[in-house]
Amino acid sequence: MRILLIACAALLLASSALGQTPHTLNLMPLPRSVQLGAGQLPVDQFFSVAISGFKDPVLENGVERFVAELSRETGITFKRKQADPSHPTLLIHAEKGSGRVQRLGEDESYELMIADAGVRLNAPTTLGILHGLQTFLQLVQPAATGFAAPQLTIKDEPRFAWRGLMIDVARHFIPVDVLKRNLDGMAALKMNVLHWHLYDDQGFRVESKRFPRLPEEGSEGLYYTQDEIRDLVAYARDRGIRVVPEFEMPGHSRSLFAGYPELASGLGPYKIEPGAPDAVMDPTREETYKFIDKFIEEMTRLFPDEYFHIGGDEVNGHEWDTNPKIQVFMHAHGMKANQDLQAYFNQRIEKILSKHHKIMMGWDEVLRQDLPKNVVVQSWRGQESLANAARQGYSGLLSFGYYLDLMWPAAQHYAVDPMSGVAASLGPQEKSRILGGEACMWSEWVTPENIDSRIWPRNAAIAERLWSPPEVRDAASMYARLDELGWHLEWLGLTHRSSLGADLHRMAGRDDTAALRTLAEVVEPLKDYTRMDNLDNAKIVWDFRAPLNRLVDAVRPESDKARRFHDSVQAYIASGYEDRAAEGEIRTLLTGWRDNDSALHPLLEQSFLLHELVPLSGDLSALASAGLVALDYLDKSAPSPESWRSQQLALIERAKTAKADLLLMVVAPVQSLIEASAGPAQKP
Amino acid sequence: MRILLIACAALLLASSALGQTPHTLNLMPLPRSVQLGAGQLPVDQFFSVAISGFKDPVLENGVERFVAELSRETGITFKRKQADPSHPTLLIHAEKGSGRVQRLGEDESYELMIADAGVRLNAPTTLGILHGLQTFLQLVQPAATGFAAPQLTIKDEPRFAWRGLMIDVARHFIPVDVLKRNLDGMAALKMNVLHWHLYDDQGFRVESKRFPRLPEEGSEGLYYTQDEIRDLVAYARDRGIRVVPEFEMPGHSRSLFAGYPELASGLGPYKIEPGAPDAVMDPTREETYKFIDKFIEEMTRLFPDEYFHIGGDEVNGHEWDTNPKIQVFMHAHGMKANQDLQAYFNQRIEKILSKHHKIMMGWDEVLRQDLPKNVVVQSWRGQESLANAARQGYSGLLSFGYYLDLMWPAAQHYAVDPMSGVAASLGPQEKSRILGGEACMWSEWVTPENIDSRIWPRNAAIAERLWSPPEVRDAASMYARLDELGWHLEWLGLTHRSSLGADLHRMAGRDDTAALRTLAEVVEPLKDYTRMDNLDNAKIVWDFRAPLNRLVDAVRPESDKARRFHDSVQAYIASGYEDRAAEGEIRTLLTGWRDNDSALHPLLEQSFLLHELVPLSGDLSALASAGLVALDYLDKSAPSPESWRSQQLALIERAKTAKADLLLMVVAPVQSLIEASAGPAQKP
Repeated sequence: MRILLIACAALLLASSALGQTPHTLNLMPLPRSVQLGAGQLPVDQFFSVAISGFKDPVLENGVERFVAELSRETGITFKRKQADPSHPTLLIHAEKGSGRVQRLGEDESYELMIADAGVRLNAPTTLGILHGLQTFLQLVQPAATGFAAPQLTIKDEPRFAWRGLMIDVARHFIPVDVLKRNLDGMAALKMNVLHWHLYDDQGFRVESKRFPRLPEEGSEGLYYTQDEIRDLVAYARDRGIRVVPEFEMPGHSRSLFAGYPELASGLGPYKIEPGAPDAVMDPTREETYKFIDKFIEEMTRLFPDEYFHIGGDEVNGHEWDTNPKIQVFMHAHGMKANQDLQAYFNQRIEKILSKHHKIMMGWDEVLRQDLPKNVVVQSWRGQESLANAARQGYSGLLSFGYYLDLMWPAAQHYAVDPMSGVAASLGPQEKSRILGGEACMWSEWVTPENIDSRIWPRNAAIAERLWSPPEVRDAASMYARLDELGWHLEWLGLTHRSSLGADLHRMAGRDDTAALRTLAEVVEPLKDYTRMDNLDNAKIVWDFRAPLNRLVDAVRPESDKARRFHDSVQAYIASGYEDRAAEGEIRTLLTGWRDNDSALHPLLEQSFLLHELVPLSGDLSALASAGLVALDYLDKSAPSPESWRSQQLALIERAKTAKADLLLMVVAPVQSLIEASAGPAQKP
Repeated sequence: MRILLIACAALLLASSALGQTPHTLNLMPLPRSVQLGAGQLPVDQFFSVAISGFKDPVLENGVERFVAELSRETGITFKRKQADPSHPTLLIHAEKGSGRVQRLGEDESYELMIADAGVRLNAPTTLGILHGLQTFLQLVQPAATGFAAPQLTIKDEPRFAWRGLMIDVARHFIPVDVLKRNLDGMAALKMNVLHWHLYDDQGFRVESKRFPRLPEEGSEGLYYTQDEIRDLVAYARDRGIRVVPEFEMPGHSRSLFAGYPELASGLGPYKIEPGAPDAVMDPTREETYKFIDKFIEEMTRLFPDEYFHIGGDEVNGHEWDTNPKIQVFMHAHGMKANQDLQAYFNQRIEKILSKHHKIMMGWDEVLRQDLPKNVVVQSWRGQESLANAARQGYSGLLSFGYYLDLMWPAAQHYAVDPMSGVAASLGPQEKSRILGGEACMWSEWVTPENIDSRIWPRNAAIAERLWSPPEVRDAASMYARLDELGWHLEWLGLTHRSSLGADLHRMAGRDDTAALRTLAEVVEPLKDYTRMDNLDNAKIVWDFRAPLNRLVDAVRPESDKARRFHDSVQAYIASGYEDRAAEGEIRTLLTGWRDNDSALHPLLEQSFLLHELVPLSGDLSALASAGLVALDYLDKSAPSPESWRSQQLALIERAKTAKADLLLMVVAPVQSLIEASAGPAQKP
């Protein structure tokens, strides 16, 4: 591992050797090893691709997409027909294909050599070729004489075999085209599992021919046809991505009971409407298992993957506690707690899955010693839970720390490692049971319009954690590369950057939204579950049908502008207030913010969607004014008066309070400036 | 007409009466008459739609799209199921449907009444309903208490029956999804004809089962399958848009001869490659007509519209002049000029079309008295040509003045009226033969990425010209409404605004492109055919396969920023230099431009795609500096020295010269400032 490590470090340092490109190598995820050469390979209209060795549709479609994508990103129309294999620019060689159904743990490694004579991309399987093509795409840049890629040799393979993204399409339906562009994004980041959370209390999203009332009564018309599902599974497979469906049982299943109330433990009636998550299947009736057996049989025809996720989380047991027949059953079978009843249910389900040649997956709660050892546990609880499972002989995935809906900054996800904490002390055999991880996009506050900005670019940090060697963990490098990745992802059709403009226009109802954008770019949505908790505290039932058209729904989870402002302030302070460039940037930003409130105020008065931003906009301008005063003191090397600073402290405290479910992200750097203005003696 | 006129004028003046919305009614195209009420109708989650009267798939699909679009634009999920018809918010009533195949001249009028009790939309046909729904969509705005539409009554109908957009997919192939979003844009602007220019020298874009070598040899793999064509025609029909195919004959047909050289008048060989437009069919061989007969028969199964466009323009005759057999034929038939041979050809083609129940259309050149009177002439030459045709009994369309590829400002297209000039003196019967017009998107410099920005929003000005009463011609009002329309069109999936970011990133190869954007936003591509003429003058053959990835290909045809800067300068001068708001804006813009060159310069050095912008960026900064000096003189009421002004004149002249095929659009306003700085005495 030491050699690889050196290579990775070298990648970050040696990039300035690339004479003609002043940029670093903007690769994400970083490869296992990179050896940089000196020159560049031009990528012009004569660039061509040829395939030697193994060839199959996955490879050929992959190459066609690669050529199309390279054409889009350069504006050069490359010939679609493959070049003479004896004189190619890029010669691709795979030893063999991936099976008809892609499996966990296939070899995904590749070697990419860019030299004077051309490019060679070799891999044991076509999956590795797909990854290598993505790496090459990220390397092509406009240079002084044309588009070019740096000469280098990359040897790359994933750290973990399971690198997934879960998307919840139940709370809010996400159409197929939106999923497809996200699959393109996943493929660009070398992720290989889409975990499709297909139903929950709020909606059942799959057509069933055997049980047609499932979507008809359980989805308000928003579900995928079986053709659409087959199409999406094929689309993912073409990109080296497995699709694992999740059907929640026995809990989180109200939408299922809308059409089939006889499966429920409670009396109903069950409707697709807001309410407590009590609905749970009745595990004591044989009809329940007959239904599930037939349903799973139908679903196995749509989802060829070996794994099948049954959810199994958060059964609160209220309906079991209050159903006398269930209580009698539990008593008769010596079950003391609801967990025992759920374990009994899971055993029955596991046998059904096994009969249909599927391996069961579930969230932490499914784990009990009485299940077969091939069951996979997905942990939302943390590394400890994962390590416990591994010690008991079960495989597992980490999702704790990878919940994209919590609105964490990318660096916070990036710091979470499946092998850290308790897991670090596992033996080699046990460690091998930790298969990887999955980012989770729960969709309580997500719509087809904002989902891209919730997933991207932060998901790329998780993708790198799961692909790159564990030593790759420098957040500054990650952010630098994440910034550059942003447009690459927009080329794929993702809208994580472009969606904001339309959202601002919706709220403003007019073309000129510049002042609103200024505010939008320095705020972030509330973190963790605070937005939901605020509803609970106000005794408001969360309604999944309510419009998500406020600023909190439009702004990005992480403010790039605030992050850069923070960095400038840190640089300015660290320089002993000598860094004039940093000071200039700080002053320009603060001046713009100071003047923004008066520009924005008339607009905020006009639209009901913007009223709530009045205090937030006022805070921003007040903060900026204070920051400018502090900067003037620092500029003059005159300490600010204590009385002034304590006045500003009150302002800082006020500005720290969330408003309109939004946090103002420039408070801390302004506070640093104010504190710094006290002068060296008064420094804390 | 006088009453309608008053209503239209009232619309522009009375909009301030809309107590709660300070905006004007941002309708485009403006309706025939609007009667404004006082209040507003809330559009909240209880908003629902019901259909009474006639119902067909066009109507039902249209209503479903309307509800989806209203959901997108408001962020409110409206129920897709239709409301109880006795308590709807929007009650739709059509008298009858449009036929299976939409026809020219069907009634497209509608009446929209928005009142306290709800909305009523009535129309003689479902086509009128589609238009009325688009009007309603444009009226919904965020107001102080929620989304709302103003109470009003609109009576609307088109001025012209033929309101088209021609898209050339031959010079550069445009994929189906791009065409579809442009059809959505057309529907939003109430345009009703897509004229699909399906083949030309550079490519044959339609699958033919009878003549498979047409696309195989003539398209480099970029063509539409017959399924895709049927799908697109149905998509258009659902939106009240007819699809008229154009197959060029006898000229502009090199791509056809790649597969079938026996149809050509020359010796070939014919390949899809750059070169002179000499290729022309041989009208003297019977086999030519047999081929065309079979081909048209096949195409009529794809294109149900009554009209069929045969092009017929720009036959240069070289191949006829140099083919002895053709010369013999012409002599034997007493034909003196190539025009006679083309007329003979057209007569034969018209008979074939007539046999297949199609009405022939062609460009100006097809017109000869020997053709049947139902032939339609599309004029690229002007109103005079159109008027001549009308006098001879032929129907016609205007396209002169509507060529979007000439990069004119919207106001220039807007000023062109099919009924102006010679056409104004036609009698009523003759006038009725002027069916309308078509915007033309020739694609020499167009790709799937920039086509949206070439068509939109300028095409909306042409759409208004063709729909609204002729008295609607105030350019300032048009621009104000065009600005607001921009985002509405992006909601439909068009990328005319958002595409610039990705293009700038491609050229820069890095995330931070702010300084490049500053330059990009004040330049426009060369006008008319200058870009092509520059190639000719340099003896460079235009190559349709060359990359279109320069700044000229990315920037918008019309700079909004330059237009607004121009308006601010005019306002400042008109105020006698007293308008402080205008002065402030001018100073802010000039300061940003002055400082931009130093910020941009390092980037321009790095990328081969940006080198050519160095002089342009220098000009912008120099101009801005001069403008700031002029502003200082005006501010102090001190006349600028004559010597200084004449120095600046040289700069102005230099800056007026196009560079990198781009025009700097702030030259004229800066010149105005410099001239104004001479003071009142020296004013010209």
